[in-house]
Amino acid sequence: MTDPGLTALLDPASIAVIGASDDPDKIGGRLLRFLSDYGFAGKVLPVNPTRDTVQGLPALRAADQLPEGVDLAVVVTAAGAAPDAVAACARRGVRACVVLSSGFAELGGDGERVQREMVATARAHGMRLLGPNCQGVANLASGAVTSFSSTFTNFPLRDGAVAIVSQSGAVAGMLAALQHPHATGLRYWVATGNEADVTVAELIDAVLDDPGVRVVQAYGEHLADAPRLAAAAEKARRSGKAVLMVKAGATEAGAKAAGSHTGALAQPEVVVEAFLRRHGVVRARSLGELSELSRVFGTSVPVRGNRLAIVSNSGGLGVMMADAAVAGGLELAELTEGTRKALRAVLPSFAAVGNPVDVTGQIVQQPRVLTDVLPLLAADPWVDIVLVALGIVGPTYDIDAIVSDIAALHAEAATRGVLVAAASVGGRPDLGERLTARGVPTFDDDAACVRAVARFAEHCEWLRRTPPPAAAPLAVPLPEGAPPGFLSEHAGKALMAAWELPVVPGRLVPSPAAAARVDLGYPLVVKLCSPAAAHKTELGAVRLGLTHADAVERAAAEVLAAGRTAGVTPIEGVLVERMVRGGVEISLGATWDPVFGPTVLVGSGGVHVEVLRDFQLLIPPLDRAGVADALRALAIHPLLTGARGAEPLDVDALVDLVLRFSTHFAATGGALPEIDLNPVFVLRDGVVVADALVRVAGPDPEEA
Amino acid sequence: MTDPGLTALLDPASIAVIGASDDPDKIGGRLLRFLSDYGFAGKVLPVNPTRDTVQGLPALRAADQLPEGVDLAVVVTAAGAAPDAVAACARRGVRACVVLSSGFAELGGDGERVQREMVATARAHGMRLLGPNCQGVANLASGAVTSFSSTFTNFPLRDGAVAIVSQSGAVAGMLAALQHPHATGLRYWVATGNEADVTVAELIDAVLDDPGVRVVQAYGEHLADAPRLAAAAEKARRSGKAVLMVKAGATEAGAKAAGSHTGALAQPEVVVEAFLRRHGVVRARSLGELSELSRVFGTSVPVRGNRLAIVSNSGGLGVMMADAAVAGGLELAELTEGTRKALRAVLPSFAAVGNPVDVTGQIVQQPRVLTDVLPLLAADPWVDIVLVALGIVGPTYDIDAIVSDIAALHAEAATRGVLVAAASVGGRPDLGERLTARGVPTFDDDAACVRAVARFAEHCEWLRRTPPPAAAPLAVPLPEGAPPGFLSEHAGKALMAAWELPVVPGRLVPSPAAAARVDLGYPLVVKLCSPAAAHKTELGAVRLGLTHADAVERAAAEVLAAGRTAGVTPIEGVLVERMVRGGVEISLGATWDPVFGPTVLVGSGGVHVEVLRDFQLLIPPLDRAGVADALRALAIHPLLTGARGAEPLDVDALVDLVLRFSTHFAATGGALPEIDLNPVFVLRDGVVVADALVRVAGPDPEEA
Repeated sequence: MTDPGLTALLDPASIAVIGASDDPDKIGGRLLRFLSDYGFAGKVLPVNPTRDTVQGLPALRAADQLPEGVDLAVVVTAAGAAPDAVAACARRGVRACVVLSSGFAELGGDGERVQREMVATARAHGMRLLGPNCQGVANLASGAVTSFSSTFTNFPLRDGAVAIVSQSGAVAGMLAALQHPHATGLRYWVATGNEADVTVAELIDAVLDDPGVRVVQAYGEHLADAPRLAAAAEKARRSGKAVLMVKAGATEAGAKAAGSHTGALAQPEVVVEAFLRRHGVVRARSLGELSELSRVFGTSVPVRGNRLAIVSNSGGLGVMMADAAVAGGLELAELTEGTRKALRAVLPSFAAVGNPVDVTGQIVQQPRVLTDVLPLLAADPWVDIVLVALGIVGPTYDIDAIVSDIAALHAEAATRGVLVAAASVGGRPDLGERLTARGVPTFDDDAACVRAVARFAEHCEWLRRTPPPAAAPLAVPLPEGAPPGFLSEHAGKALMAAWELPVVPGRLVPSPAAAARVDLGYPLVVKLCSPAAAHKTELGAVRLGLTHADAVERAAAEVLAAGRTAGVTPIEGVLVERMVRGGVEISLGATWDPVFGPTVLVGSGGVHVEVLRDFQLLIPPLDRAGVADALRALAIHPLLTGARGAEPLDVDALVDLVLRFSTHFAATGGALPEIDLNPVFVLRDGVVVADALVRVAGPDPEEA
Repeated sequence: MTDPGLTALLDPASIAVIGASDDPDKIGGRLLRFLSDYGFAGKVLPVNPTRDTVQGLPALRAADQLPEGVDLAVVVTAAGAAPDAVAACARRGVRACVVLSSGFAELGGDGERVQREMVATARAHGMRLLGPNCQGVANLASGAVTSFSSTFTNFPLRDGAVAIVSQSGAVAGMLAALQHPHATGLRYWVATGNEADVTVAELIDAVLDDPGVRVVQAYGEHLADAPRLAAAAEKARRSGKAVLMVKAGATEAGAKAAGSHTGALAQPEVVVEAFLRRHGVVRARSLGELSELSRVFGTSVPVRGNRLAIVSNSGGLGVMMADAAVAGGLELAELTEGTRKALRAVLPSFAAVGNPVDVTGQIVQQPRVLTDVLPLLAADPWVDIVLVALGIVGPTYDIDAIVSDIAALHAEAATRGVLVAAASVGGRPDLGERLTARGVPTFDDDAACVRAVARFAEHCEWLRRTPPPAAAPLAVPLPEGAPPGFLSEHAGKALMAAWELPVVPGRLVPSPAAAARVDLGYPLVVKLCSPAAAHKTELGAVRLGLTHADAVERAAAEVLAAGRTAGVTPIEGVLVERMVRGGVEISLGATWDPVFGPTVLVGSGGVHVEVLRDFQLLIPPLDRAGVADALRALAIHPLLTGARGAEPLDVDALVDLVLRFSTHFAATGGALPEIDLNPVFVLRDGVVVADALVRVAGPDPEEA
């Protein structure tokens, strides 16, 4: 860990409790009890203005009396006393401070100011601050539990490979409770509250430095520090760990609720989604789902593919899981003839040896049937994942045999990048518990099992890809002296041409007569050209399909008249362009998000991008594979590749265009908050940008 | 119940066991043990060729010795002996017979023949037959358990409001196990196996006659008897009951697996989905989901709307549930100012009184806070559903108070059509158990809770609609003497015109010269007309936008030449039509499904219906509301209502068209297996059918 303050927070050797109480049910007393219950072996320093000892430990009267260099101080006083306590800690060289007290920014007004001052004091002395208005932090390896969450009394939590990092203390508590029955255990538990200083993103990054952590379960309502989160995700990728996250407030109603809960600002959902996907942060939509995902991510090494074999003792259960698998993006493996033959040799004649394999109720008469069947499936070269689905396992089943067969295969197959998971539906609960204890990801819900495995396989596919390197900045100067606001179409296209994008041939001319003389071959298009005419069609300032000079001259006069009638000003002139025909219309856009930076949108062209909402959002840097994936995900993709026997279009040129566009856009650093190229024509040979709307940032710092 | 055979099967007064065994672990012995364990008080008649008594009961030596008029006989013999046993039972006037033995149609060949003969024998004597190759039937009210499923030993199942009807015995067992922890209990449990006679659809219909049944949980891999299932669903609707169903084999992989499991034929998923939706059968995708849905459907009376209030002790949990609710189609209720004021009076100042209401951890200090808050929410006129979401309920919570507050409100609110449900996430398990025991639908997974409630609210909305009456058959004669196969476009359009659909004006002419004389106003369209030219565009046999007579004559010559070059025969002539411009292209089609009958498809027009897969499938009879809903569900719907400031189009005329078309199509009785009207232009004023492809059924009975 690079930041010593965060190290002190997450793994303190000494802990001061400012506001320690002798009553173990009060918050200031609970902390001391937890430190003792969880076996913290470091130094504990209670601070209490009126007592010499607290819960049997020698106490100090004030934070000012703390020895130099305490790792962690926890402030449990009333809000009014907290700033002084924080200041005293800072002066005594405390490395990290947790403020559990509430009554700060969450109340607005004065509370916000006091909180700001408290952070300033901490920073002036190099002390990190968690909270205020938070439920604290715990390290289950050392027993440094400095939280008052009931979750630490509800369950005897134990050390393990999961770290929980959450803005909300209640959510962190629920995640720990959901985590409790599973095999992986818990290393860290942190709730950040108001995040006046230390953020969820920073903590995700920090806990990943612990070699004992395999999975981070994160919860946030606002992603404030996107670069840090991206860096943490990259750290996870490199070290074979996973960051699982619920980003709440995904809908308007949810964002509104989050706003009244923590003051979180709404963030555009499509951007959040694209950002998390881009960085391999695996998103869950509920705490239940987060916990389910964690069960697979916490126990499994990366799997080599997404081809699944299902073995069940119920044909029906096999069918349902096959349906769910395909719906979730998995493929049912086509078993080799050798595997089928070998299966036929060990299974009763009435069993199905396709995929799913149905061992039938025969498992009761032949309890070691899985001993024979499972290794055959896991050894098939076309099988990457083996799901064992057991329904109604009753008293007549040999559970010992079943557990040992599945667990043995799980351990062995992992060495070859093959995943083994289990579902036990409606059977004896001890089957699931024993498989879980042996490290096999096990579910009691058929759909949840397939969902979690499918997400894991999808993440492993992402892991197999080399992330695109950040492209070298391309120094194309922005239009000089352009005032804030939209460029005219001509100026916007000139910029796109400077970015080496294929723009439709055209001329800006001052008059109808000059328009008539334009020599680009017919048919031509005539448009009014003005920075104030972003929506030309609605103005009646566009004429298409002009096939001779007279028509062009007349059209030019008409669009100029339309512009003047609508009061458009300034009018730069008339844009005369070659008319593009055939192909498919695409829309390519970019927006600079204040938190997430450059985002690129590719979708159906024309008005359809808005109506059909057929688009994909991408976060640069991009690579060919990523762009090709996004195009494949569009509903109109079949039109690009030659639906209904049409000739396929030049998708390669489209990928080139998207890559070049996004590299240049990312290099603008936010000077152009918004670009919209719509339509872009994808032709049999090449692509052509037929319209360009470019906005230049104003002096408003929000836009830069 | 109308069918006395089914009554005898589901509620027998006397039961014979053919193949009864003294060994309670063998199948023929298990049955007697279950009848005793579950307290069956009727007559039990064991039949065993070698014993005078079986498990203490006097035994008969052969089925031939059975007294007249036994209600139910269960055949547990080897497959070879089963047909004789069935025949003997039939001769003795047994009302219903369950054949548990396997070795029949599921093996194909001879087994299929023997099974057919067995059914014929039963039918000749008026005896109903369940199975063969099935796990039997149970009535938990009378204790008539004639199944060998382990589920009856794994759990002490008890009587209640749920009926399980499943093709698969293993699935029925899993459903019973998942059902066990919930409050509603189980009345019937039936597994139909090979369905040689009695089907899942028939049994759903039959169990709904029992006033004690509120919910049917059904599982099937093939819906064989659509009219019966539709009738059962209608019975459920009228009696305020619900049919919940997993129809497995929804994907190609799943259907293939189902085929190898039970020989089920693949059924078109979109039709299955439309059929179930049409009839209000609530579809689940997994056993877990079926069980979750059952928890709400089994405990709740119809709710009056979908406006939700959430109250939680964790702001974060409230936000996540708000997200999930909106994603699931619920609305967050806007509380009245009166409700907010009243909430402010009872909640601490730092609690959120919006929606979600966050009572915060204050519930520990103020354990009756729900006593005050819940009735305020449930009394708000804008609230139809109250979700109580409790995270990490620990030892310091007053569980008694929480349970009694929620349960009291659940009971009271139900009388006003307001639903109360609860989620207890990561808290003490006894909270959920106690709420469940009090009849409150309760979940330990936040997302599952919202999902199930949302599906329930959706179903209640369906219930509030009056189902459209079957339209009177409209006697338009089909084209006389038309050979099987496609009609020419002209003949197809003539039929559509006879159905009073607005078809584009046009003339069929024999020659280019006659085409030039057509007087419909320009521009015109010219097409080759032939029953063998279904795909004219690909043939190059269409010319658009012809603005004068010469162009029409030339175009007519060209399309005739194109037809002759391609070897099209017979050529009826050239179709000259007015060209339709503007508006939006829609596609309207119909298919006659061999199982489900008439289906109508409405979607995006042109090639887009195939590429974008933007369509809705409807099952006649239809009504305006249903058609309008389907149109609203299309991605292109905004184009119909005037996206981007365009004028709205004549959606009313489109609804009329769909209604008239589907009424006529339903009246054909399958004589036209397929009609495709694409494009249909929706204009500002009216609609126009611009192309029509009509297929006439051949002598192949599959098509009729």
